[in-house]
Parts: sequence; C-alpha cells; structure tokens
Amino acid sequence: MLEETTRLHLLYDFYGRLLKDRQRKYFEMYYRDDLSLGEIAEIEDISRQAVFEQVKRIARTLEEYERKLGLLARYEKRHTLLEELQRELSMEAPQDSRAMKLTHELLALEMEID
Amino acid sequence: MLEETTRLHLLYDFYGRLLKDRQRKYFEMYYRDDLSLGEIAEIEDISRQAVFEQVKRIARTLEEYERKLGLLARYEKRHTLLEELQRELSMEAPQDSRAMKLTHELLALEMEID
Repeated sequence: MLEETTRLHLLYDFYGRLLKDRQRKYFEMYYRDDLSLGEIAEIEDISRQAVFEQVKRIARTLEEYERKLGLLARYEKRHTLLEELQRELSMEAPQDSRAMKLTHELLALEMEID
Repeated sequence: MLEETTRLHLLYDFYGRLLKDRQRKYFEMYYRDDLSLGEIAEIEDISRQAVFEQVKRIARTLEEYERKLGLLARYEKRHTLLEELQRELSMEAPQDSRAMKLTHELLALEMEID
C-alpha cells in the first residue's frame, strides 16, 4: 500500500495543479496530512462515504492524466539515465568538469517539481 | 506570427491529449492542415465566427496548461543543457563512450513527444 501512496504523491507533484481547489484540499488532507476519512468528513461536514468517493475519484483523475501525458514514466526514465551518466562521468571525468556540472544541473531540474 | 504558431504547435505536442476530441479536430484543421476559418466553417457547418472563437479558446487552453505545468519551459531548459553536454563530451570523451551514448538516449527521450 505504501507503494501506491508513493505513486500518488508523485502523480500529485506532476498533475496537482490541474485539479480543482477542492480536490487539492481533499488530497492534501488525506495523503499528505494523513487525516482519516472520518476526520475529513467531520472537518468538511459531509459523510464519510462522500469523502471516500472524492479521494478515489482524485486518484483516478491523477492516473488518467498520467495515462494521457506519461510525465511520471518519462521522469523515471530520465532520472535513471541521468544517474547512470553521473556515475559514468565520476569515473571518466574530473569532478569539476563542465560535463559533470551540466549533469548536476539536469538532475536539479528534475527535482524542481512544483 | 510564425513564432506564435510554432509555440502553439509545441504546446499542442505537450498538452493536445488533454483537449476534447472536437478541440483536437479544430486545432489540427487550422494549425496543422492550414485550412482557413471559412473552410473549416464550411466543413463543420457552423459560422466562421464560431470557428474563430473555438480556435482562440483552444490556444488559451493550451497556454493555461503551460502556465500550470510549464512542460514547454522545462523541455527548453533540458534541451539547452543536453545539447551543451553533447558538445562538451564530443570534445572531452571518445564518441563511443558510455557517457555519450547516455546523452544521446536522453536527447532521444526529449523528442519522443506523442
């Protein structure tokens, strides 16, 4: 279950800005702040079932964006290649080489989500 | 005007899949197939003004996605860094080095839009 949650957090990093404000609020309460469905229901003054359905729908929406744009999949591919490049350069080139600096910049750019 | 059109084509590569089918159809007729507003109006049996508004709205929608996700801006940054890295390695490392191959793979990944 942790794996699924980690995936949803990553998808939220990529696509959260496409969600409605209300969806962002629910997502953050449930996944980031780790509130229970019952706690959110109380705060929002709606039924626990309604919160459950919202949370499920948000997860489906995020997966739907990924199906269409594939940003997480691309990110993972790039990240793997960049890490290998970094290892490779650390053996082949001096630490302060321009190539190494560019690779660091590329890796930093990957982290700049949000 | 060419610059704006080029930008819209790129935005469409990134976000086209988020548009509705009808929006994709209008975008492709107008920007890719270079039909005039009048020609599209005739094909679709709607007014020229309605086509004009659709086309404007699609451009705004694509810009709105870019404002939220910034995929084109990131792509441009990555591309600039990768090209510099490629130039750098072509001076520092043998052409068949693993680092060069990884850089080629990263550049190829950038081109794989759609």
